[in-house]
Amino acid sequence: MDIKESTSFIDPFTVELDIEQGVMRDAKNHIVRKASDMRGHYKDAAALDALADRGDPLHYEVFEVPVPEQYGHLQYCISTLQPGLVGEECFMTKGHYHTVIETAEIYLCLRGEGYMLMKTSDGKAAAEKMSRGRMVYVPPYWAHRSVNTGAAEPLVSFCVYPGDAGHNYGDIETEGFPKRVFSRGGEIVIE
Amino acid sequence: MDIKESTSFIDPFTVELDIEQGVMRDAKNHIVRKASDMRGHYKDAAALDALADRGDPLHYEVFEVPVPEQYGHLQYCISTLQPGLVGEECFMTKGHYHTVIETAEIYLCLRGEGYMLMKTSDGKAAAEKMSRGRMVYVPPYWAHRSVNTGAAEPLVSFCVYPGDAGHNYGDIETEGFPKRVFSRGGEIVIE
Repeated sequence: MDIKESTSFIDPFTVELDIEQGVMRDAKNHIVRKASDMRGHYKDAAALDALADRGDPLHYEVFEVPVPEQYGHLQYCISTLQPGLVGEECFMTKGHYHTVIETAEIYLCLRGEGYMLMKTSDGKAAAEKMSRGRMVYVPPYWAHRSVNTGAAEPLVSFCVYPGDAGHNYGDIETEGFPKRVFSRGGEIVIE
Repeated sequence: MDIKESTSFIDPFTVELDIEQGVMRDAKNHIVRKASDMRGHYKDAAALDALADRGDPLHYEVFEVPVPEQYGHLQYCISTLQPGLVGEECFMTKGHYHTVIETAEIYLCLRGEGYMLMKTSDGKAAAEKMSRGRMVYVPPYWAHRSVNTGAAEPLVSFCVYPGDAGHNYGDIETEGFPKRVFSRGGEIVIE
């Protein structure tokens, strides 16, 4: 077999998902972000500090069974973002560009309600609503962050992206996103 | 390869899926394969000819909203394979390698029961069971064909693969798959 360049040969396998609850059984990697991991991302830094001091609650988790981080392979995961507020701002993920910036990502929302916020480095911005059954296509070049606008339910998505994409969190720490999502008196506001 | 030059910039969008029934709403492309399109693939060619003559029933459909067929983008679709038999052999898709052979594909089964049959050009073979919530990882280099073993329900999967993967059906028409799936007296047999 002509294995071109550096794409590893592996055997097929299956992973069990609970599509109702949005759970990946037997995930090998489990990434956990708590409130204290989110410093610098919310508008109300004091509210975040207070939250981190009051038990440092879970913010979001990523579950995956890893495959080679190479061109031709596909990374996939379950992303689970808890509901909650930092001041008036809805819980969200850090957000990232891909290291290989010209790579897309597909989010199939399985549970909950929220938004995918997206931006480009040259100033474009977009927001797409997420709810069960909505698939968001995050095209190449777009940084992306998910936001849970629900009162009680986690926002859960099944995600797929190219094996060689990688994650670039640093540029978002510097740039931020042009829009934020708030809950004010029961209304969800993007501004 | 100068990948950056050739990955198109597009805006984000969403697609609505019915995760229970396995339906993509507002799909732009709809590929249809009937019995008569499957000549050469089943063991019992006479049974297939008879089926094609008796109304030429639907075999499988692919629903998609296209994105650029380029490195960095991700193709995705809903694949719907009807139940049925050609002689004793379960209805199946043609099967394909990717044109860029070192590209993977992810199948998340939403409905029905069946198998993903896989093979490599140097003689390896694999079969993974499909049912709601099972995700099959078809690695780079593996040709793949799905088979519906259910009595009445379609086998439906949400599929994602690299934008530049392409489809190579010709090699499967020549090589076939080393294993077939039969229903004999209510038993499913792979041989």
